[in-house]
Amino acid sequence: MRVYLDNNATTIVDPHVFEDMVPYFCQMYGNPNSLHQFGSESHPALRKAMDQLYTGINARDEDDIVVTSCATESINWVIKGIYFDKIVNGDKNHIIVSEVEHPAVISACKFLEGLGVNVTYLPVNSDGVVEVHTLRDFITDKTALVSIMWANNETGMIFPIEEIGAICKEKGVLFHTDGVQAVGKIPVDVQKANVDFMSFSAHKFHGPKGVGGLYIRAGLTLSPLFHGGEHMGGRRSGTLNVPGIVGMGKAMELAVENLDFEKNNVMRLRNKLEDAIELIPETIIIGTKEQRVPNTILVSVKGIEGEAMLWDLNKNGIAASTGSACASEALESNPVMEAIGAEADLAHTALRLSLSRFTTEEEIDFTIEVLKNAVTRLRAISSTYAYAPEWHVSKL
Amino acid sequence: MRVYLDNNATTIVDPHVFEDMVPYFCQMYGNPNSLHQFGSESHPALRKAMDQLYTGINARDEDDIVVTSCATESINWVIKGIYFDKIVNGDKNHIIVSEVEHPAVISACKFLEGLGVNVTYLPVNSDGVVEVHTLRDFITDKTALVSIMWANNETGMIFPIEEIGAICKEKGVLFHTDGVQAVGKIPVDVQKANVDFMSFSAHKFHGPKGVGGLYIRAGLTLSPLFHGGEHMGGRRSGTLNVPGIVGMGKAMELAVENLDFEKNNVMRLRNKLEDAIELIPETIIIGTKEQRVPNTILVSVKGIEGEAMLWDLNKNGIAASTGSACASEALESNPVMEAIGAEADLAHTALRLSLSRFTTEEEIDFTIEVLKNAVTRLRAISSTYAYAPEWHVSKL
Repeated sequence: MRVYLDNNATTIVDPHVFEDMVPYFCQMYGNPNSLHQFGSESHPALRKAMDQLYTGINARDEDDIVVTSCATESINWVIKGIYFDKIVNGDKNHIIVSEVEHPAVISACKFLEGLGVNVTYLPVNSDGVVEVHTLRDFITDKTALVSIMWANNETGMIFPIEEIGAICKEKGVLFHTDGVQAVGKIPVDVQKANVDFMSFSAHKFHGPKGVGGLYIRAGLTLSPLFHGGEHMGGRRSGTLNVPGIVGMGKAMELAVENLDFEKNNVMRLRNKLEDAIELIPETIIIGTKEQRVPNTILVSVKGIEGEAMLWDLNKNGIAASTGSACASEALESNPVMEAIGAEADLAHTALRLSLSRFTTEEEIDFTIEVLKNAVTRLRAISSTYAYAPEWHVSKL
Repeated sequence: MRVYLDNNATTIVDPHVFEDMVPYFCQMYGNPNSLHQFGSESHPALRKAMDQLYTGINARDEDDIVVTSCATESINWVIKGIYFDKIVNGDKNHIIVSEVEHPAVISACKFLEGLGVNVTYLPVNSDGVVEVHTLRDFITDKTALVSIMWANNETGMIFPIEEIGAICKEKGVLFHTDGVQAVGKIPVDVQKANVDFMSFSAHKFHGPKGVGGLYIRAGLTLSPLFHGGEHMGGRRSGTLNVPGIVGMGKAMELAVENLDFEKNNVMRLRNKLEDAIELIPETIIIGTKEQRVPNTILVSVKGIEGEAMLWDLNKNGIAASTGSACASEALESNPVMEAIGAEADLAHTALRLSLSRFTTEEEIDFTIEVLKNAVTRLRAISSTYAYAPEWHVSKL
């Protein structure tokens, strides 16, 4: 049996999504910006996709969505656009992000620090979530942007986005949220949350890789990251990725249709797996079930290196992760675990299991058995487990 | 009959390319940066694609290629990366480009001008090509980058890239070339041409939309446009677009295999069409056949607005263009025509016909008939043609 439990890294393209994309590779392949029929014949599908996108996140209309190549582009666009618009060509010099943001946010901010920008990395509590009062304390009249994720990629914890949005609005500070792990898992309403910008990526909700989007609230301008022709109203140049856009639109529609399924069925399977893990001694799961997106578990299994666990699971056909795939090749300890105060030894024991609507009960039952056996086997041969000091996490 | 003669705007995905992409949507969908089998099972195909890419342009090895989402990204990356590396964090303050570069280059440079960077827009001769001696005159010790295209998107004219590369090397100035319209049409050898950076886009050579690349000569560094995880050696973050990369690799392989076919068969059909156009009175084709890529004709048909011609052709199922699709919705006059000194009236009469290896002789014969009839019909009802002054182009 092969079991894919790494849906926070990427997801299978829903076959219905792929089906909708197919005609735009070898049949309706024209450039939609061309004036002829080969160009215009994809317009109805593009319009439909833009409708699916803006409806899915409750933007005002399709003009509030700009298609990009992925959330990493969207995030870099917001952070660097704000840098040019509000810092170089303005009087601001400060950005606030949480310390558990995705590497795209953190790394873009580190780059801006090298250019003299002040960046505040907001601490998180023991659940890995920003506490709203800390944000308020750090906003000054020099703050150009607050960027805080909607849900964390590693823990699945949902952040208080509506409250953060309200504070930013009250203080007159622009607010970007990385919505990558929220879209398709929980209801996302950009207007209700007072979001100015939101990044998302199709391949995290059963759309294709290589396409994403940025919500930009009506009335806001943002210097392009891709200068060039007049695509997307002059905001993002480059020939439109027609099959990608059509696929992302369909994926968004299906994701929204399946939100109840996520909340009920995916969460039920996730909780079944989680309950089984909690019965294994000396495991800690970050955050309560209720505060998390329905599909994610981040667990620390004392005495077992995350990589050793992955290897055992992988031998049995089960795909999991020690954290963000964007950093996984580096074999570093889990940065979110570190941020919430776990000691390095513990941060190396992180295991992330992330389900999707394609996960079956049979797969979860199989995973529970494999996981239990793996823990027994690995702890028996683990030097760190046998001689580990008393369980201690400074903030947990 | 439907005839697609707008291949400089975008191309049909070769069915063999699409076939190679298919397994990576719904079957081998893992994130290649993940440590499990779902992630690693796409590695052989990715390695093959990177080999196909570097071989196709004669880069040293696959480390010299970074996959991006399109040439517009690659171009913006080079220009803005150089801005940060050599201007903000260096002592340079000058960029040289030709005045007929793609809008991505021109628009990115206009943006940098707003930040205080000096940009020289090199003039072109009556064939729309940069003359090498003019470049030499403009390079100073403040010049950070020269960016000149390998072949022009509108005229198809091939630029003296090897000579330009040699001058830049001699002067110690970095050299970027927009290779979008050269790759797949003529042999491209980045090492022989002394190129430091070259941008390309898969969808211009029968690969998929939404994926492109940047050649970076070994030993050069460039601040990322997409900061984030550690993809592509830390140079370009974002989850790898596996089907896109696989498709671009295959498209490159097929393009290189078909270079002789381009040079012989595509050029023969192009020349047949061109010869027929030259028999129509008062038409001017920019540049000689020999100096152009094999597939392109840019013609001015006196007295006929380009859009009127497009409309007539389109009614008959033929797709053409008045110039870059990236600017076509604006209905502006052709900027390359203007750059070579054509008066505005004439620049509005531009018609671009661009073939591909999928163009058939039957399609060309049909196009010749339709075009001749269209010219007769449109000139008969054209006010500008009936009352036009003597043919006059200042530099033609």
